[in-house]
Amino acid sequence: MKRIDLNCDLGESFGAWRMGDDPELLALVSSANIACGFHAGDPTIMQRTVAEAAARGVAIGAHVSLPDLQGFGRREMAVTPAEVHAMTRYQLGALYAFARAAGVAVAHVKPHGALYNMAARDRVMADAIATAVRTFDPTLRLFGLAGSALLDAGRTVQLDVVSEAFADRRYRADGSLLPRSEPGAVIADDAEATAQALGMVTAGQVTAVGGGVVQLQADTLCLHGDGAHAVAFARALRDALTQAGLRIAAPGAA
Amino acid sequence: MKRIDLNCDLGESFGAWRMGDDPELLALVSSANIACGFHAGDPTIMQRTVAEAAARGVAIGAHVSLPDLQGFGRREMAVTPAEVHAMTRYQLGALYAFARAAGVAVAHVKPHGALYNMAARDRVMADAIATAVRTFDPTLRLFGLAGSALLDAGRTVQLDVVSEAFADRRYRADGSLLPRSEPGAVIADDAEATAQALGMVTAGQVTAVGGGVVQLQADTLCLHGDGAHAVAFARALRDALTQAGLRIAAPGAA
Amino acid sequence: MKRIDLNCDLGESFGAWRMGDDPELLALVSSANIACGFHAGDPTIMQRTVAEAAARGVAIGAHVSLPDLQGFGRREMAVTPAEVHAMTRYQLGALYAFARAAGVAVAHVKPHGALYNMAARDRVMADAIATAVRTFDPTLRLFGLAGSALLDAGRTVQLDVVSEAFADRRYRADGSLLPRSEPGAVIADDAEATAQALGMVTAGQVTAVGGGVVQLQADTLCLHGDGAHAVAFARALRDALTQAGLRIAAPGAA
Amino acid sequence: MKRIDLNCDLGESFGAWRMGDDPELLALVSSANIACGFHAGDPTIMQRTVAEAAARGVAIGAHVSLPDLQGFGRREMAVTPAEVHAMTRYQLGALYAFARAAGVAVAHVKPHGALYNMAARDRVMADAIATAVRTFDPTLRLFGLAGSALLDAGRTVQLDVVSEAFADRRYRADGSLLPRSEPGAVIADDAEATAQALGMVTAGQVTAVGGGVVQLQADTLCLHGDGAHAVAFARALRDALTQAGLRIAAPGAA
Repeated sequence: MKRIDLNCDLGESFGAWRMGDDPELLALVSSANIACGFHAGDPTIMQRTVAEAAARGVAIGAHVSLPDLQGFGRREMAVTPAEVHAMTRYQLGALYAFARAAGVAVAHVKPHGALYNMAARDRVMADAIATAVRTFDPTLRLFGLAGSALLDAGRTVQLDVVSEAFADRRYRADGSLLPRSEPGAVIADDAEATAQALGMVTAGQVTAVGGGVVQLQADTLCLHGDGAHAVAFARALRDALTQAGLRIAAPGAA
Repeated sequence: MKRIDLNCDLGESFGAWRMGDDPELLALVSSANIACGFHAGDPTIMQRTVAEAAARGVAIGAHVSLPDLQGFGRREMAVTPAEVHAMTRYQLGALYAFARAAGVAVAHVKPHGALYNMAARDRVMADAIATAVRTFDPTLRLFGLAGSALLDAGRTVQLDVVSEAFADRRYRADGSLLPRSEPGAVIADDAEATAQALGMVTAGQVTAVGGGVVQLQADTLCLHGDGAHAVAFARALRDALTQAGLRIAAPGAA
Repeated sequence: MKRIDLNCDLGESFGAWRMGDDPELLALVSSANIACGFHAGDPTIMQRTVAEAAARGVAIGAHVSLPDLQGFGRREMAVTPAEVHAMTRYQLGALYAFARAAGVAVAHVKPHGALYNMAARDRVMADAIATAVRTFDPTLRLFGLAGSALLDAGRTVQLDVVSEAFADRRYRADGSLLPRSEPGAVIADDAEATAQALGMVTAGQVTAVGGGVVQLQADTLCLHGDGAHAVAFARALRDALTQAGLRIAAPGAA
Repeated sequence: MKRIDLNCDLGESFGAWRMGDDPELLALVSSANIACGFHAGDPTIMQRTVAEAAARGVAIGAHVSLPDLQGFGRREMAVTPAEVHAMTRYQLGALYAFARAAGVAVAHVKPHGALYNMAARDRVMADAIATAVRTFDPTLRLFGLAGSALLDAGRTVQLDVVSEAFADRRYRADGSLLPRSEPGAVIADDAEATAQALGMVTAGQVTAVGGGVVQLQADTLCLHGDGAHAVAFARALRDALTQAGLRIAAPGAA
């Protein structure tokens, strides 16, 4: 039986501020990317989020970020590869502490926001992240954009890589995402997004914006966490995948 | 052969700012308390400090703090025990990541500054720290003020506790430190401080400010890290201890 | 015609996180306490909040805080009076820049959260704030708890002080607020809270928890900003005050 | 009598960390760029630095920065022009509060580090800064790299602009600075740097790296603040300028 992972960003509250519908989403996903305090999350929120994910049997990942609370990790910064390497270790270790106390393993690492984009296109940054993960624990999985430099970097150091695809984003002919600044970058129609997801998961291909078919590996699909509609779409997508005979499960789960 | 640990705060630079004479001190101490990013230190500095301590064979500890860079962790804050518990885990995990990558163990945890004082007198705070350490790794040692609530809390959860004494601080008749705000709180004369240290380490006692002798367990002596004089005093104290037949070694070291 | 000021905390979002129902509340209050980046708010949010308040003709105040985003300024910290003095100036100046560009004046200063409580009971802290305000602009008004040390400090340096009362909080016989940790500290019933507010504003008195009547000056009433119920209660209170013949207006407004 | 301004970065300590030799430099410069808390400085340090500069009669400027303490404002960030506009206002207002209390004016604004470079080449960023300065106070002077977009932006909104040159940096044929990553970017020889400075100030020209002479307006020279050599060079440069018949004075000073 073919399987697919559904991942979502969680634990993105901070102090007195709330964000996301964590309990609803935890019931729908198989992997949780947990904020580690650099773009969102604080120690108290991390501890609670790890406990909730563990209780639901959802696989836990470190959602490592640039240090930018005010910008929510979405603003690229001219950090050095050495800085990225060290901040990846720091955040991964912090999350590990909560997982260890909760009796569960950290299963994966996924860069967040601007760092995700930097690692997708810049092999030096990608290597900085991949080696930080590898030297912490070689059994960790590395999540990255399908076809990205980050996945290449992970394979080079013998990490299991997990190729991520987006149900509701348009792709260009070279397999990259149409930037959000372009019109039509996000697929607003749920049925169309679901159809794209099914095509990527079952056939390994997606239709690019200008026409033409792109080959693409989809091991995990990214669900967005904000807003009531996000939960409704997540539920609809999950149902569609299940009805197509797919099993929703984290990579490597029994 | 009787032994004594010498510990010092290290890795207290931050970004472009330098603090402390780390290489000099690493040559003199047996245990390093490494800042974990909350009062000082950043991921790049932590990684370098762990590597340097590992290279010198100095035991590594997490110097966990309240979240207050501007106040250098020296300002007490009305945090809850749950917050202290979670922030201890977070910082301990972050340091662990660098130690693991460097192939060394984290040996101990010591609260820093205001948190050290809060944990010395407040058993609830002390329990919050002790259980965070215990659930991360029961073989970790917990450093705290001789006779403090923190050591009681550590013993209660079966942690090995390490009783800390200060060569250059005056004690009161109840075994507490004379606060820095009081005249004569710090012993300025090196010979006098060295004599006090020898008395604590070899006889387990110290003369209190008003006269009278206090019994006190001294497993480790705290060395200060700032200024050229700090290094000179550390060297003098180390020599005096060695000449008195003591071996300088981290707790539990072979 | 007797008048009363209604004040509310605004601009308490931060980066990607939202808090409070600012547009609804701006339609109901006469004074806005605007977060200045230390417990909430960032430059972009401050600029927008000042513009919105100015457009509604709501008086603008600096809601100065301890530096603690994670704790939302609610955790007391052992800061020095000199630090409080300097941080009050800093935040007041930052808000002033947005007001000046918007062509409006800063009308008042109100300490937030833990700093509000510290300044209410500790005259040295109160003086640190009052002199910071006075040396910036002697026409600024200083908001503080009725009967508090902060109002005394303000009067001493010839500032106009504005005595604040709470519609939905219980008072003790000495005029202080029953702490939130005590049962019954908050009046849940809207009619009862409205009646208490009317009594304070029109008769200058309130019934204490143990019985007995407390004399109390109520120049401004504090409205809470969170939740749909907060807006409904604010509207009900405003209506009740208006029907009792009071005019809702900022202190000193024409 | 021809005049030249000497400016230096000051107040770049933070909390317990020290940086720069402020008292020595204040005796040598005519303009002080004071850190405003985003890359360095905190309210207590700003207050002290403003007081010291005022006591020496040195003109005070806001050294506005990207929000990045860990990176000391040296890492470019993908902030929006609206964010840059708001953060310039915020920092300028914060400094203004200390100047107002000290009875002196803020004389100028100079972007720091990465923001300086962004504003030099990117007219949209330059406009965001220039309009923030203009709407706060049209008499403020705007410091920027000679020939940069920032000076153009300042002129467009009728600000007095101050064209900055560097004694110890190599220029390219187009008038831009040879990046620090290139060999020979910094002139290590003091006599050579002094000669370059004199040429820029008296003749308005400098020899580019590949040969060829570049025309360049030098209203102010930037002195670096770190290290014992920095102070010695500043003194030597000041003496050379004075002996060449120039008067060291802030722009617009009597």
